[in-house]
This record gives sequence, C-alpha cells and structure tokens, in this order.
Amino acid sequence: MEILARLQNQANQIKQIHLRDLLSQRERNQVCTANFENILFDYSHSKVCQTTLDLLGEYAISTGLFDKIRAMYEGQHINTTENRAVLHVLLRAQESQHPQFPEVLQIRERIKDFAGKVRNGEILGVTGKPLFNILCIGIGGSYLGPEFVAEALKTEPNCMRESIGRNLRFLANVDPVDFLRATHELDPEETLVVIISKTFTTAETMMNARKATAWLTSHITSHPSEKVIEHHVCAVSSNLQKTKEFGIQDERVFGFWDWVGGRYSVTSAVGLVPLYLHYGPQIDLFLQGANSIDRLFLEKANLNQWKENIPLLMGLLGWWNTQFLEYSSRAVLPYSQALVRFAAHIQQLDMESNGKQCKKDGTPVEVSGPIVFGEPGTNGQHSFYQLMHQGRIVQSEFIGFCQSHSSDSEAHNELMSNFFAQPDALALGKTTEELRKENCPDALVPHKMFKGDRPSFSLLFPALTVNACGQLLALYEHRVAVEGFLWDLNSFDQFGVELGKTLATKVKQAIASETFEGHPSENLLLHYINHR
Amino acid sequence: MEILARLQNQANQIKQIHLRDLLSQRERNQVCTANFENILFDYSHSKVCQTTLDLLGEYAISTGLFDKIRAMYEGQHINTTENRAVLHVLLRAQESQHPQFPEVLQIRERIKDFAGKVRNGEILGVTGKPLFNILCIGIGGSYLGPEFVAEALKTEPNCMRESIGRNLRFLANVDPVDFLRATHELDPEETLVVIISKTFTTAETMMNARKATAWLTSHITSHPSEKVIEHHVCAVSSNLQKTKEFGIQDERVFGFWDWVGGRYSVTSAVGLVPLYLHYGPQIDLFLQGANSIDRLFLEKANLNQWKENIPLLMGLLGWWNTQFLEYSSRAVLPYSQALVRFAAHIQQLDMESNGKQCKKDGTPVEVSGPIVFGEPGTNGQHSFYQLMHQGRIVQSEFIGFCQSHSSDSEAHNELMSNFFAQPDALALGKTTEELRKENCPDALVPHKMFKGDRPSFSLLFPALTVNACGQLLALYEHRVAVEGFLWDLNSFDQFGVELGKTLATKVKQAIASETFEGHPSENLLLHYINHR
Repeated sequence: MEILARLQNQANQIKQIHLRDLLSQRERNQVCTANFENILFDYSHSKVCQTTLDLLGEYAISTGLFDKIRAMYEGQHINTTENRAVLHVLLRAQESQHPQFPEVLQIRERIKDFAGKVRNGEILGVTGKPLFNILCIGIGGSYLGPEFVAEALKTEPNCMRESIGRNLRFLANVDPVDFLRATHELDPEETLVVIISKTFTTAETMMNARKATAWLTSHITSHPSEKVIEHHVCAVSSNLQKTKEFGIQDERVFGFWDWVGGRYSVTSAVGLVPLYLHYGPQIDLFLQGANSIDRLFLEKANLNQWKENIPLLMGLLGWWNTQFLEYSSRAVLPYSQALVRFAAHIQQLDMESNGKQCKKDGTPVEVSGPIVFGEPGTNGQHSFYQLMHQGRIVQSEFIGFCQSHSSDSEAHNELMSNFFAQPDALALGKTTEELRKENCPDALVPHKMFKGDRPSFSLLFPALTVNACGQLLALYEHRVAVEGFLWDLNSFDQFGVELGKTLATKVKQAIASETFEGHPSENLLLHYINHR
Repeated sequence: MEILARLQNQANQIKQIHLRDLLSQRERNQVCTANFENILFDYSHSKVCQTTLDLLGEYAISTGLFDKIRAMYEGQHINTTENRAVLHVLLRAQESQHPQFPEVLQIRERIKDFAGKVRNGEILGVTGKPLFNILCIGIGGSYLGPEFVAEALKTEPNCMRESIGRNLRFLANVDPVDFLRATHELDPEETLVVIISKTFTTAETMMNARKATAWLTSHITSHPSEKVIEHHVCAVSSNLQKTKEFGIQDERVFGFWDWVGGRYSVTSAVGLVPLYLHYGPQIDLFLQGANSIDRLFLEKANLNQWKENIPLLMGLLGWWNTQFLEYSSRAVLPYSQALVRFAAHIQQLDMESNGKQCKKDGTPVEVSGPIVFGEPGTNGQHSFYQLMHQGRIVQSEFIGFCQSHSSDSEAHNELMSNFFAQPDALALGKTTEELRKENCPDALVPHKMFKGDRPSFSLLFPALTVNACGQLLALYEHRVAVEGFLWDLNSFDQFGVELGKTLATKVKQAIASETFEGHPSENLLLHYINHR
C-alpha cells in the first residue's frame, strides 16, 4: 500500500485510541521525548505511537525531506517562485561555516561597532545628547520578530542591566495613532530612529519614516534638517540609492540579502540593529542559540537520528495533526509573560509561510497550514481555554522554563504547576463516572464532563536565557519549513498579500476623487466621506 | 420542510454563488446594511441574500430568540447551570430603567466619588504623595476588558488630557516576571493597587495581591504595614469578609453581583474603578454608549425591526457562518492601533462563552463557537492575511473609524483605504484570466490567483470616542449572547476551566513532594526538578 494510504489508515486507527490509554503506556511515553542541550521536547500527549513514528519516518524519506533540508543549507533556490535561496541559517553561522559569504560577518561587525559607539556615547545626537531611545520603524517581518525578542529579554537579568535607562520602541501601523503611541513622552534629542525596509518602499514604513523625520526636525530646530537626519536616523535596507535620497549616510545603512525572507529575518540586521543597540553584546548569545538549533536540524536530518531532531519532530507532528487528524488550528502557549509577543511572531511565521493554496508545482493543495493564535499562560486559561477543553480540538503547544527571570520560586512553581497540568487535563479529560463519584448533580454532568483526547506537546527549557531565546526562534523557523516541505509548498513567498495592496491603491484614488458608483464597497465609502 | 432543513438547503445553494456575483447586485448590497447613530454595519460581503435573511428571521422566531433576549433583560435566571440572572445591561442603565436595583447607582457614585478624590488629591498616599499610578491586579474577565478600554482611550483627546502624568498598569499572570514588568520604575509611594476578584480567592490574583502589598510595605517603611495597605490598596470584590482580613477598609471595596459574569463585567466596578481613576468623568460617556446599544438590542428584538438591530444581525450572521457555512474561525480586525487589545478581549468573551460541548438541557452540540483571533490592521496584513486570502476561509470582521484620534488625515486615509480594500480583495479574488491579461507567467498563475468568495462584515463608526468604545463593547457582548441563544447554549458559565485548576493543585503537591512515578507528565516533571 502507498505510504500516504498507510498513514491515513494509521490516523483512522489512532483516532479510536484515547490519549488516556496512550499515556498509560510508560514505555511509549519514554519514546515520545527528545532532549537537546537540556531542552526537553515531550510529545507523549500527541496522538502518536511507535507505528505512527515509523510511518512518519518512512514518509519523510519517501518525500525527500532530508534532501530538502540539505538543499536549503546548500543555498539551492528552493524559493522557486521567486528564484531565490533561503539561507537565514547563514546569518547565525560561525565563521568557519560560510567562507563564501564574508559579508554576513562584516555587516554583523559593523552593527556591533555602531551599536557599541551609540551605547558608549562616542556617537551622540546632533545636540550632543546620548541616544538612549531607539524607535524602530518596520512592519510584518521587520517588526514582529524583533519585538518578540525585545520583550522576551526585558527581564533577563543581564539584558535588564545592559538596558537600564534605555528605551526601545516599535512603530509598525500606518494608523497615525500608532505614531502618537510610539513617540509619547520620547525626547527627540535622545532618539535614534531605525527605518527597516528591505526595498525602502514599504508603504506603511515609509509614511512613518517621513513622519518620524518631521517629528525630529520640528523638535530639533537648532540644526539644519539634513544634520538632524544624519545624526538621528539609520536604516536596515538593501536599497542604498533610496536611503541616500532619504538623507541617511551610507555607513549607517545595514543591508541584508534576497535570500533572507522578511519573516525569517530576525537574525539579520532587521533584528540585530535594534537588539544590539538596546541590549549590547549579550545578543551574541542569541545568535549562538539559533545556530545550535541550526546545526541540530541539519546534522540529525537522516534516517538514524531524526527522532533526536526536535524541529523536525515538531514539523512532522504538526503536519500529522493538520493533514491526517484534521485539527485546523494551533495554539502557541508560552508559560512566560516575557514571551508576550511570541505567539504574534509565530502566527506570522506560520500562517504567512504555509497558508497557501498550491504546491510548488502549482497543483492545488487540499489542506495547508492551520490558524495559529496564542497568549501567555496562565492568562489564556482564564480566556480561550474553555473552548480548548470543551469546544473544538486545538493542537496545543506548551512552552515552559525550569528557572524564572525572577527569584520568586513560589510564584514560578505556581505558574509551572499549570504548565504541567493543562496538557494532562486536555488529554485525560474527566468522565461522567468520575463526576458521579463526586456526587455531581445529574443535570450538571454533561456540562462538567471533559471528553479529553486533545493533543499537545511541551517544550521545556532550562531557562529563558538569551541563548534559549535564539533556540526557540530557530526551532519554530525550522518547524514551519518542515511542514512546508511535507506539503511540498513554497513556504518562502507570500503572493497572497498582493491583491489587497493593489485594491487599496485604487480605493485611495477613489477617496481622493470621491467617485464610488458601482464600487463593491460603495455604501461604506460614502459613509466614510460623509463622516470623516 | 422544517426550518433548519430549509436553512441547510439555502446554505448549499449560496455556497455555489460567488461573492463576486452577490456583490454585483446593487439592490442586495443596499439591503445588507444597518445604521444606528451613524454606525454603519455593512454585511454585503457576507454570503447571504434576501432569502437567507428571511429564513434567518424565521428561525429567530421559531427558536424564541426575541423572547430569550427579553428574558435576559427581565432578570430571568438564563444562566441555568448556575441558577443566575444575566444582567450586565443593568450596569449601564439609566436611573429610570432599574428602580429595583438602586445599589447599581450607589456603587457607581461611590466609585466616582473615590476616583474624584484620588484625582484631585483629597486622597493621598500614606506619605502624602498624590496617587498618580494605578496598578490593577486581576485576570481573565477582571483584566482583558478593562485593558482593552484603557488602551483604546489612551489617545482619545479628552482622555489623553485627563490622564496626563498618570499611569495605569495591569498585572494578570501568576508568572513572577509579570510582576517585574508591571512594577518596573513605579514609585510605590505614588501607587494605588486595585485588587479585582469577585470571590477574593482567585489563585493568580491573590498571589499577586500579596506580592504587591509586600512590595508596598517593603518600600514604604516610614509607616506601619497596616497603614500602608489602608492608604494604598482598594478592591473590587463581593467578599467583604476576605477584603477586611486583607486589611482593606470597607469604604474602599466596590462590589458587584452574581448576575455579572466575569467576561461581561467591564461596565461593573471591575472596569469602572480603574477607568474612572485614570480617565475621570469621561467614563460616563462609555456607559452611555453601552446603554445606547443595550436599548437598540432590546427595542428592535422583534419581527418588524430585527434587520435594524446590529448586534442581533451580527449574531445571526456569525451563527450562519459557523453552523451552516462551516467556517471554524473568526478574525477580529480593528483598523485602529488604539484597539490593540480588543481582539484579546473578544477572544475571551466569545470563546469562553460559546466554546461549549452541550446545550442548556445537556444534549451535545455538534458545532459551537469558532476560534477567535486578531491583530490591528494594517499590521495583520503583513502577517496572517496571507492565509486568509489563499489558505483557509476565515470569517473576517473589519472595524473602522471615519475620524482618527490624530490630526494626520493623510495617514488615516492610507489606513482606511486598506480597511475598504481588504473585504473587496477577500470577496472578489482575482481570476487566472485577469492574471493572463497582465501577462503573468504561466508557472506563477496558480500562486498569484485568488479564489475570493471569502466572507466578511464591516463596522464603520464616526470616531473612536469614549461613547463609541462603550457601543463597540456592547455590540460584541450581545452578539455573543445571540449566537449562544441560537445554539441554545449557556453562554454564561465556564465549567471547562475547572479541570485544569484541580490538576494544577495536584501537580503542585507532587512537585513539593517530588513524587512523580506513573504521573502522565512524569518525564517533564523530573526534568523540571532537575533543572530548576
């Protein structure tokens, strides 16, 4: 029988076996773990058994998964629709790993040098004040990743110390309200604006960039505008022509390459410029962490070791859950308030990469990536977990840390007790028999029972160090790539965002000329111009 | 034929008609709107026609929807499993509307009086300093709603003026990192802590409350602890016994009632205490806004006027989309950065209310509430919209404003052009023929085409005033209730959150005694104690 048919058979079988029964097999539970540098990946609460794993391994080989992974590292143009390589792993590679791309290290050194000089006061604002504030302007991939890392490290003890007295803010939305929020109580004389846009043409970013320079120059009137921009603006971009036209000195422009996709760009200058400016050399560890997972992912992409390859396992399980068990959504649930913006980053990474309609060869896909959402636990428990326990089945991904940024171990134990309890509650459920034993009134039994059999996996790190933050990022980057490889999608383009942009330009013209007759949003547009 | 069967037939038919064709009928588009106080609700981009609306109206009657709505306002115990009334509408009612509940107005006056005295300096901290900082401790329903409103009003010109020099922060997560974040650079001498818990026993909240008083008393050593707590702590709770034991004076405790569910409590003391403290009497308008929708919802809950009843229409459409068109997820998409936390509140409101497994009578439901997620536009366009356009079909809800909090009309026009363009892009799509006309290379056609036919609705308000913020809240509160009524669920209990809590207590004991043998999370627990 063909491997996909056997996987389908296996899915049909395992759907009938309750997770309560799977979890009662201690040997199976031992098998369903992988450990790397004391990161424990435990997928015993997923609907898999030894047979499932064997079949998944067989499918991985038959679909050329290991070769696809190697092709990515080798720089083959696996982003076929745009004819580009996909080499974000190079961004955190050690020197010996990429003699062919010396410019990666050169730019990293330039960033560290610039950030160091801003931090130690060698580089000052035009009026002689230190640049304590960083205002990052970027959207999508130029925003969500850096913001997640910035938030994650805010309370990490070393980063906390390194950023005392400093502010790092992000401005993404074209909504002028976001500009008000981002610049609220910020002193322009102490502010360095970082404009992040590969092409330097992104509509939202360029409008905010112009607003930011107007804000700087209207507040700092002691010097000519050009001088203010020279001293207070830098850029992350590949378009030196446009940055120069904008008035930014070349030595303050940090580039990246067409082989770095926006949502995979956190470890490029996109993330490194703001993060080194705010947290200093600590960020070296972030790159090392990502690199450690990059090496794991490549080195164990083979038949003998794939069960030790955590990102690969995460990808196989996610694909299995979505394709065969047909769970259409996925919750990312970090038990850490420091990861408050992690789910938003993964939502982009996953949904933009794998929310696709066709394979690389253009043939339609029946199923592709799921809906991704999440909030930190325990907050989510008091919100959407009701549905996860008694409504629809959601693939749940728990992320926890043995040690906290805080010294309050009592509160951390309380937090982690919930981290351990929720996967159990989702998997085991509570039967009507158990309720009757507790003398639950008959009328309430259907309301208080839990079917259970809801799958999850858990990632348990020693601590949310700077290094671990890089590991977490790379785990999810590669996981998303694996799922795309299994569906044979291109996870590295995003043509689905184009149509909205085109139509927005047309709407803008219609608003300017106030002609809406026959427009599909005629009623709304008329209401707008009558009430604005 | 039975009405549900006819609805199913209608669904099967309308699935075959592309939204492109529905939208080409201008008369239909005119029908698919409702207007209330210049809020335009436009559902022309939903998969409905005149026949669908007629059938939905017929079903509303047959299922007693209008009666159920009246029963809620009359105080019948529609929260059957907990035998409680559901009367959050009373919280914002005008005096004449509830002679039977004078205490609602009394508490509101007490809150306004207390907030006024804190704001004008009659009430000071124990060391004589003004209480500029409000630290709100609460979780779930005692957190998400107030936070959404606080963020929404931050840049509203009147609220901005009223809150100059003031800080309002929220502390929800039991993660001790959240405590570090929430108290960072806060001066305890100028801080008033508001502890929000109906029972005053919520695990997370009480742990954070104890930490907050320890933080206050360890910093303010000039006065005895009891005095510090008396001056710096107030509570929103129904448990006067426990608040007294905590050391809080009775006159600083603001109660609410068992007929106010947590996620419906924003207009009770839960939201009013922090919001009046931070924004002052402006919050009157917030209550008036909610009340205006409450009256619309009740007064037009009848056969002749239901098509003018926006929250009712929102509920019927949501139910239609989920039950018959089988879209399992819903995106809440405010084109306003001020609504940055609105989707998180609605996620809780909707998923906790309608993520259920059985009807009120205990019989199982096949389908109930969808997955709800969202981020402000245009940010989301650079993130998960790829999937919405080319992956799974998501019911999309666009929320926009004719006027901005900012005077930058160019940026606001840019924002709103996207607000109008996205529903069109989702509905219309782009055909292979159109692509070929643009000379799109053959190999790219499958990647660049858009099937369209993806439904949405749009809510367009004149501006995000304080009043509109209350209207928006009430629109969604009632919409969720309508969907619950149609499914015949109890949208006002949440038994699905209990099991996790019980298991967490057991895990805490297991961690304390370090005995995990045979525990379903044995591997994880062992890893934890070895690495913490």
